[in-house]
Amino acid sequence: MPLPAESHRSLSLQQLAGCLGLDFRGREDQSISGVASLASAGEKDLCFLQQEKYREQLRFSACGAVLVPRDFQPAPEDGDHGWLFSDYPQRDFVRAIDCLGLDHPRPEPGIHPSAVVADSAELGEGVSIGPLVSIGEGTRIGDGSVISAGCVVGQGVRIGRGCLLHPNVTLYSDTTLGDECILQSGVVIGSDGFGLVLEGERWTRIPQLGRVRIGDRVEIGANTTIDRGALDDTVIEDGVKLDNLIQVAHNVRIGENTAVAACSGFAGSSTVGRNCRISGRASVMGHLDIADGVTVTATALVTKSIPEAGVYSSGTPLMSNRDWRRVSARYKQLDEMAQRLARLEKALAGKNEDTPE
Amino acid sequence: MPLPAESHRSLSLQQLAGCLGLDFRGREDQSISGVASLASAGEKDLCFLQQEKYREQLRFSACGAVLVPRDFQPAPEDGDHGWLFSDYPQRDFVRAIDCLGLDHPRPEPGIHPSAVVADSAELGEGVSIGPLVSIGEGTRIGDGSVISAGCVVGQGVRIGRGCLLHPNVTLYSDTTLGDECILQSGVVIGSDGFGLVLEGERWTRIPQLGRVRIGDRVEIGANTTIDRGALDDTVIEDGVKLDNLIQVAHNVRIGENTAVAACSGFAGSSTVGRNCRISGRASVMGHLDIADGVTVTATALVTKSIPEAGVYSSGTPLMSNRDWRRVSARYKQLDEMAQRLARLEKALAGKNEDTPE
Amino acid sequence: MPLPAESHRSLSLQQLAGCLGLDFRGREDQSISGVASLASAGEKDLCFLQQEKYREQLRFSACGAVLVPRDFQPAPEDGDHGWLFSDYPQRDFVRAIDCLGLDHPRPEPGIHPSAVVADSAELGEGVSIGPLVSIGEGTRIGDGSVISAGCVVGQGVRIGRGCLLHPNVTLYSDTTLGDECILQSGVVIGSDGFGLVLEGERWTRIPQLGRVRIGDRVEIGANTTIDRGALDDTVIEDGVKLDNLIQVAHNVRIGENTAVAACSGFAGSSTVGRNCRISGRASVMGHLDIADGVTVTATALVTKSIPEAGVYSSGTPLMSNRDWRRVSARYKQLDEMAQRLARLEKALAGKNEDTPE
Repeated sequence: MPLPAESHRSLSLQQLAGCLGLDFRGREDQSISGVASLASAGEKDLCFLQQEKYREQLRFSACGAVLVPRDFQPAPEDGDHGWLFSDYPQRDFVRAIDCLGLDHPRPEPGIHPSAVVADSAELGEGVSIGPLVSIGEGTRIGDGSVISAGCVVGQGVRIGRGCLLHPNVTLYSDTTLGDECILQSGVVIGSDGFGLVLEGERWTRIPQLGRVRIGDRVEIGANTTIDRGALDDTVIEDGVKLDNLIQVAHNVRIGENTAVAACSGFAGSSTVGRNCRISGRASVMGHLDIADGVTVTATALVTKSIPEAGVYSSGTPLMSNRDWRRVSARYKQLDEMAQRLARLEKALAGKNEDTPE
Repeated sequence: MPLPAESHRSLSLQQLAGCLGLDFRGREDQSISGVASLASAGEKDLCFLQQEKYREQLRFSACGAVLVPRDFQPAPEDGDHGWLFSDYPQRDFVRAIDCLGLDHPRPEPGIHPSAVVADSAELGEGVSIGPLVSIGEGTRIGDGSVISAGCVVGQGVRIGRGCLLHPNVTLYSDTTLGDECILQSGVVIGSDGFGLVLEGERWTRIPQLGRVRIGDRVEIGANTTIDRGALDDTVIEDGVKLDNLIQVAHNVRIGENTAVAACSGFAGSSTVGRNCRISGRASVMGHLDIADGVTVTATALVTKSIPEAGVYSSGTPLMSNRDWRRVSARYKQLDEMAQRLARLEKALAGKNEDTPE
Repeated sequence: MPLPAESHRSLSLQQLAGCLGLDFRGREDQSISGVASLASAGEKDLCFLQQEKYREQLRFSACGAVLVPRDFQPAPEDGDHGWLFSDYPQRDFVRAIDCLGLDHPRPEPGIHPSAVVADSAELGEGVSIGPLVSIGEGTRIGDGSVISAGCVVGQGVRIGRGCLLHPNVTLYSDTTLGDECILQSGVVIGSDGFGLVLEGERWTRIPQLGRVRIGDRVEIGANTTIDRGALDDTVIEDGVKLDNLIQVAHNVRIGENTAVAACSGFAGSSTVGRNCRISGRASVMGHLDIADGVTVTATALVTKSIPEAGVYSSGTPLMSNRDWRRVSARYKQLDEMAQRLARLEKALAGKNEDTPE
């Protein structure tokens, strides 16, 4: 397979401003062909200044042009750069990456001869199937989707249009993906949930007969796992973004546009509302409901339903190990301390009554 | 490879009751061909009622028949369903899935032509080797076992009878699996343990010469990792059930019928007894021993051996972020608070002695 | 592919002592061909005694020879073994594994016919490419490196000399690995970081244009994930050792010779110094800096930069669930308790002023 055609292009500052629909100041023919952070940029790179506190970096940056807030007033000490004025510098920076054709190109359409594609699989227009991919019977893949090397797609899977599966992704049978989903390597979707029932001392497996249904524009990070439902389906709604190494158990539902940072976990049948932000290594216990618009901070354990939007936390602060040992010992005595405190209050109250002031 | 023959069958309520050996009430010729939750069931579906508190769902369910506790007395307001009376409704529900042939069918025996199977590998009767699988020299696979697409099975591996490896599983050399094990996708077994020794500031790797030995009826969840032993073996005993994204370090031993929920981790040389229940994201430090019958609750960190059965926990409760910030600040002062409390007690005691009542 | 030639050899005690450059006591022609733990050793095995507290095991061990500290004085009750005297028994044990040729042999050089290697890929001398491997365009692999079955190596990747990729590793495009790196199965390097920007309620993906650069002698455990940088690179310096199931987000930098135990996670743009020890399931929040020589204990959450070497912790001790419930309830009242304590102190101070002693 040949390298895909490079799509990078060089634009003048004026052309770039035109592509973005923004005002600019500087040499209109200045050539911009890349993007970079202020610290590592060269003269052909575009940067962006999101927060005033990084302003000092401007002076030392060799960047050719900078996206700045609309009300930013360049001063001589900010350095000799081109300036693009934006209401949302970071957002327009993302659009500039598009103007400049800098995103990783997708591979050319076609089926690599080493791929194993079932006869009854249906592939849309412009689909790309990489080397050593396996596609099961009855699976349908929408127009323009890319299945990269080493992926295993089971039977009866539905993949929408414009999806990108990076290498070594596994989709179990009957999984459905909407349009424009991106799955990073090592993702497993549709694995059997942890459904067990005791018979004496032994566990019997409960067959997991549900599926995983994933909406449009969902992105899933490397080595994240999503189990199929036991009877009903596990559901990831449109626009959900999951980071790496996340566990989603059977029959979980994650609401639209919710973003979940790495290493988090959702136990069986928990539901998460829309527009939530679940920080890194958060854990949600089973059969709980989290309302729309909830933020859970890093490493928190959610032990009960959260019926109202807000920010929720658990955990203890970082300390030197020496202080931590001392505090940990006291922590175990906390109930006793509370009782002693109550006794003192009572004693003192008694005293106050007994002794004339 | 053709789709495996569908094994689903439709049974009359009477036939299903016969298959399960249960008493029933309702139309004996009512046709049942599926299983479902009460909320999503149709007229040909069997459901089960495990707990009285879900009884209200019966009325609104379209299910054809329900497995209920033996002492359950159907009332008119419970709806017009068939009834199957059971001592263990959930268990019999699992058996009904079998009666109805609803579990995911295993693929037909045979070796896919794209698989790479070493000449000296020995495959039992009815083994299925999927597309793009690699099987190493000297490996033996027992009768009826299934190795799905993309799996890599190293040299000298022993796999028992009736095992099911889902796609993209990796077994390192010399791993042994008993009979009827199920491994979900992305599982890695036999990777090198984290064995290091310092030489000056540099770490030297300690070759990991042990193996992983896994018993019968062990199930292992997606992307779980089990390291090989340093010298002796890492051992997972019969009937152990491991959920997704679990870490099992070198020389760990997990006892018979212990179940471990997702995202838990066991550091090197820890041992866990039989019939334990380790909840999600629990962590067990190295060189500890956990007795039989121990339950560890979600996200707990086990820092010392647990010599007695019981339920063990660590961690702090979920709070609003505002309250949590306040409490966290106090937490750091806990030792100081304890000392102040003791001083107050002393002062008050002194007072009580000094001042005549 | 034939089994690689076995490299095991049998040495006399005298030869082994010569290979290690150590003094010995015992039968010089005693034959040693393996290594083992004291508990499971046989008469041809070498063991080592690291700590005096395990001395009692010597008596019951059948081992042929033991590496002991230089000042160790074998007594009759220690059993009839050969003795090798070492300043660093564990280190010399690792060297003995080398003398005896006991480490897992690497496969013979060559490209398996089922591998898919791009025409423009450049392979050094003695490279081994296993079955069903995919190597992208423009990728270069250094002399003697091994790419095992099922690995997917993207375009423009640089792999140094003597590296070992175990099966089913994924390297995204433009990743660079130094010399002598070892990657366990399921490792994903170069996946897109979790870069998102809100537009209204929807998340827009920020293309991740940086790479992952990994130094020499880096080892990475099973199913660990390392994201590529957003603009600048994610960097893992020489000699870093990462255990299993670790998350390294975009633009993280981990300093030379730092070791990280399993299940830890580093959020975006955090930096970790040299010679740090990060224990299991530690979490480091984003945009923090950790100094050289820092130890973080198991499950700690690092919420702020750590500017000084030392040992740092967070979390609460393990308790019986019953005690834990009580303490957890009190924990929520901690701020209130502190205020009550302060009031008591004030009241008592007032008393002390008011009442003449």
